[in-house]
Amino acid sequence: MTQPVIKFTRGVPPPESFPTQEISDCAVSLLQRDSDIVLQYGTSGGYQPLRQYLAEQAGVPLNRVAIGEGSLQLCDIAARILLEPGSLVYTESPSYDRSINILRRTGARVVGIPLEDDGIDITAISSRLAGGERPVLFYIIPDFQNPSGTVLSLEKRQALVDLADKFGFWIIEDSPYRRLRYCGVENPTLFDLAPNRVVRMSSFSKLIGPGLRVGYLVLPESFAPGFLKFAEDTYINSSYFTQGIVYEYIRRGLLEPNIAKLKSLYQPRLDCILTSLSHEMGDLAEWHKPEGGFFVGMTLHGEFDTDELLARASHAGLILSDGRGFFPEKNRQCFIRLPFCALTTDEIQSGISRLAQVIHSMLDK
Amino acid sequence: MTQPVIKFTRGVPPPESFPTQEISDCAVSLLQRDSDIVLQYGTSGGYQPLRQYLAEQAGVPLNRVAIGEGSLQLCDIAARILLEPGSLVYTESPSYDRSINILRRTGARVVGIPLEDDGIDITAISSRLAGGERPVLFYIIPDFQNPSGTVLSLEKRQALVDLADKFGFWIIEDSPYRRLRYCGVENPTLFDLAPNRVVRMSSFSKLIGPGLRVGYLVLPESFAPGFLKFAEDTYINSSYFTQGIVYEYIRRGLLEPNIAKLKSLYQPRLDCILTSLSHEMGDLAEWHKPEGGFFVGMTLHGEFDTDELLARASHAGLILSDGRGFFPEKNRQCFIRLPFCALTTDEIQSGISRLAQVIHSMLDK
Repeated sequence: MTQPVIKFTRGVPPPESFPTQEISDCAVSLLQRDSDIVLQYGTSGGYQPLRQYLAEQAGVPLNRVAIGEGSLQLCDIAARILLEPGSLVYTESPSYDRSINILRRTGARVVGIPLEDDGIDITAISSRLAGGERPVLFYIIPDFQNPSGTVLSLEKRQALVDLADKFGFWIIEDSPYRRLRYCGVENPTLFDLAPNRVVRMSSFSKLIGPGLRVGYLVLPESFAPGFLKFAEDTYINSSYFTQGIVYEYIRRGLLEPNIAKLKSLYQPRLDCILTSLSHEMGDLAEWHKPEGGFFVGMTLHGEFDTDELLARASHAGLILSDGRGFFPEKNRQCFIRLPFCALTTDEIQSGISRLAQVIHSMLDK
Repeated sequence: MTQPVIKFTRGVPPPESFPTQEISDCAVSLLQRDSDIVLQYGTSGGYQPLRQYLAEQAGVPLNRVAIGEGSLQLCDIAARILLEPGSLVYTESPSYDRSINILRRTGARVVGIPLEDDGIDITAISSRLAGGERPVLFYIIPDFQNPSGTVLSLEKRQALVDLADKFGFWIIEDSPYRRLRYCGVENPTLFDLAPNRVVRMSSFSKLIGPGLRVGYLVLPESFAPGFLKFAEDTYINSSYFTQGIVYEYIRRGLLEPNIAKLKSLYQPRLDCILTSLSHEMGDLAEWHKPEGGFFVGMTLHGEFDTDELLARASHAGLILSDGRGFFPEKNRQCFIRLPFCALTTDEIQSGISRLAQVIHSMLDK
């Protein structure tokens, strides 16, 4: 009997997390109330009531908020505005592969700053800056990092924004998982620490549903107008209909209960993967133990051929992402990203067990 | 008593054209049937059933269709893939201002080909090509052109695709208004004439409602895969939720009756503006008499200062677009785009009357 395939690939929410009936009710109610606005073209900043809500949350004026079709699209525009061929950009190493692509597409040189258990290696950045490097921006995922699961410590947050101020670079703080904290204590955001130095980037994809495609940026005052004009020239506006559904969902008080529901759905899955990993992989790899988010990032002990690992895993009914894509530079170690939210605890246990067998089979070769 | 302001600016459909109740019903039904798909992430090509429908309409395989958040966003990607600094691009002169911006942003040189009553001046293109110019692409709006309202004749369509084949350039055929023909006979599309040379670009913004933000391209086989990867790296996918609503709307047989309804709404407005223009402006300007679409494009006789015209119009309660933005090169004549679909016949009559007064006031100076 063939075992069902288990996919440790993209960090997507499971379908059972979607509040379908509530989204349906919000859509109907929104169209009854505001169809002339939400079915029409609009300005690029976004549906006014949602924009107002986000501006209030961030403590900024309305015109510093841009809502788009997911935050990645907005990151692409920020990169196109801020970067040019030869610009220097820092990211964590590893970091989100799609963002690395977006930054690189501008012709910028992307340099990875190594990740430690409490976030980026500040000494490494300091010494690069002391050596004369002048990055235009640092793209960073400080909370439950993709792909590693780490959280940037408070001390390092402060150190990073101090460096940004001193050396005049922007920080893009990509923070889609922050509200999905299953235990431990929240740090302030980088934006909280330096609201004029940081582009805050987040979305409702992980908190309501990705299919609505509603993400947003909180922009520094200095380039918000240029950003909004560029966005308008690219797509006029993103859908006010889906943005209005998100707003209606929040207005009805459904967001916070949904986040609580998501946490109670995901926490046992995180517990399960961490238990499975320590049972099956204790001697084979090391990994950070996340307190939230979607991912456990794991580095195998010793040297492994990633192509062979992916092929053997696939043969064993286990689909893995290619860990090499997460590194701006060539990475000598073998890295595996394990998204756990969209798998049941049974699938997680089987998946980790298969992974351990695959690795053992490569060691036994 | 202050008169209400009349806006001859953006080409948007009027709110009374939105099939709000039907969209609401489609949303509810879609979520009942397919929430796991439409609330999730997807591939960049688009919601499979809608993609399939569009592929069948165009007679191409599924993987040559890309659905995005309006067609402008997709045009931006096509431009980023096909063009580089110094590339040569032709457009009509005048053409859609946002598209000119998008093409120029790549660093391409945009050259305008003069428009005649039956579309671009083919002799002008031929002589440029004979002189050695080698454009990468021609961006063209062959049906009810924005901003002029003209239609490219069948002879010129054939001549253009023949030139594209001979000199190896792409054609982007932007065709959002084609289905809104109020009289006269339809020509084949450029895509019909040369399906491997033409990127067909259209949307449901003018046929259902812009707020859903659903547009699409039919791509040549040679760069469809690269296009889809680039789109994925930019926004993962556009909303399957709004794409699914469009599909459900079509599946229920609502699209054709809605187009018929729109024609019966817009045709009297076109008749009204043409009558008003010939009453009020016969000696002041010339314009093409469109058989469909959203716009009448008008060129004033004599020389006018556009800034002064816009200011005087505004003072008279009439908001006009800056006609200079539609021309890739500096245009010596004063051009005015008059979108008529979102105005009542009363507003159209008053608006044209005010416009005539403004122009007379400038002549009397």
